[in-house]
Amino acid sequence: MKTATEYLWFNTQKQREFINITDKVEEMVRNSGIAEGFVLVSAMHITAGVYVNDAESGLIADIEEWLEQLAPCRADYRHHRTGESNGDAHLKSMLVHHEVIVPITGGSLDLGPWQQVYYAEFDGQRDKRVILKALGQ
Amino acid sequence: MKTATEYLWFNTQKQREFINITDKVEEMVRNSGIAEGFVLVSAMHITAGVYVNDAESGLIADIEEWLEQLAPCRADYRHHRTGESNGDAHLKSMLVHHEVIVPITGGSLDLGPWQQVYYAEFDGQRDKRVILKALGQ
Amino acid sequence: MKTATEYLWFNTQKQREFINITDKVEEMVRNSGIAEGFVLVSAMHITAGVYVNDAESGLIADIEEWLEQLAPCRADYRHHRTGESNGDAHLKSMLVHHEVIVPITGGSLDLGPWQQVYYAEFDGQRDKRVILKALGQ
Repeated sequence: MKTATEYLWFNTQKQREFINITDKVEEMVRNSGIAEGFVLVSAMHITAGVYVNDAESGLIADIEEWLEQLAPCRADYRHHRTGESNGDAHLKSMLVHHEVIVPITGGSLDLGPWQQVYYAEFDGQRDKRVILKALGQ
Repeated sequence: MKTATEYLWFNTQKQREFINITDKVEEMVRNSGIAEGFVLVSAMHITAGVYVNDAESGLIADIEEWLEQLAPCRADYRHHRTGESNGDAHLKSMLVHHEVIVPITGGSLDLGPWQQVYYAEFDGQRDKRVILKALGQ
Repeated sequence: MKTATEYLWFNTQKQREFINITDKVEEMVRNSGIAEGFVLVSAMHITAGVYVNDAESGLIADIEEWLEQLAPCRADYRHHRTGESNGDAHLKSMLVHHEVIVPITGGSLDLGPWQQVYYAEFDGQRDKRVILKALGQ
């Protein structure tokens, strides 16, 4: 059994960004020497998400608008009494979910034809991390 | 350590269907000879989901209606400028999430009394795949 | 390769509760002797969830209110024709998701600075279980 761990760092220019990290996950898996197993891709912050979907800019704009409708930016979240202003980012993170498991088969990510791994930043312009942890043989 | 991989194929008659795949996952795990571990059940397409909930037809109709409310079929998604018409199916897939991990204990799926594994098709009538990947000992 | 399994039992006083179980997961991982791997934390019931986010009481109240807006308590769910009255709890469970995978590094949960593991009960006052299953070396 083998395991491998890497951390990706992000500090986005905008408050919200959607970043395709598929190549970074693929490279990490290749370096791990794991042929069969799982790789966990998990945001280490509570105002960001990781998801698998399409690398199509129109869809990404649709996703951003949709998240804003379902988990809107508002002044009156109770969480803001702590001095924070990012209540919506926590809810968006929960909606998108903060992690995915990608299967590894034959030494590569076993993704479908259009599946890409995205880091979704909802409260950027600060240092954030994603853990990549692979386990297998 | 053992791993096992299988792919389930679907080509649903309707555009949207909810299919109970618990027995197929259970059978795959039994064939793998893995007594303790995890099995990943993950849609390989970005307009389908996999979730765990109840095998009750009323609830499934409630889920379908609820998903349509939160991620409605609309003509004006930006994604449709690519020629697609399935923007809502992408959003429904994100809401449901595309994968689950089921624990394996004593050679069987370690599910609670009402937990069933469902494949949720949101853009069917075409070939779609789900990967089952088990890892353990 | 090592695996370890434990079950947490809950019987909440209120119908809805959010319970921080991070310490219990951490303790289970320490007892497992696993240094590198994954721990699955998964509700075994279809009216409860498990998520990772902040241990801040204002945010938790925001989350509860937000879930009620997106998956409201209603009399007319089709699921209620079975005699149940917890349709909303199923939908809330789907929204939050019923499980997370937490990475284990150096024998501890490899969580970010604010990440805490929560059990979210949406239909309590009865016996419920969560499975903790760790796998690694």
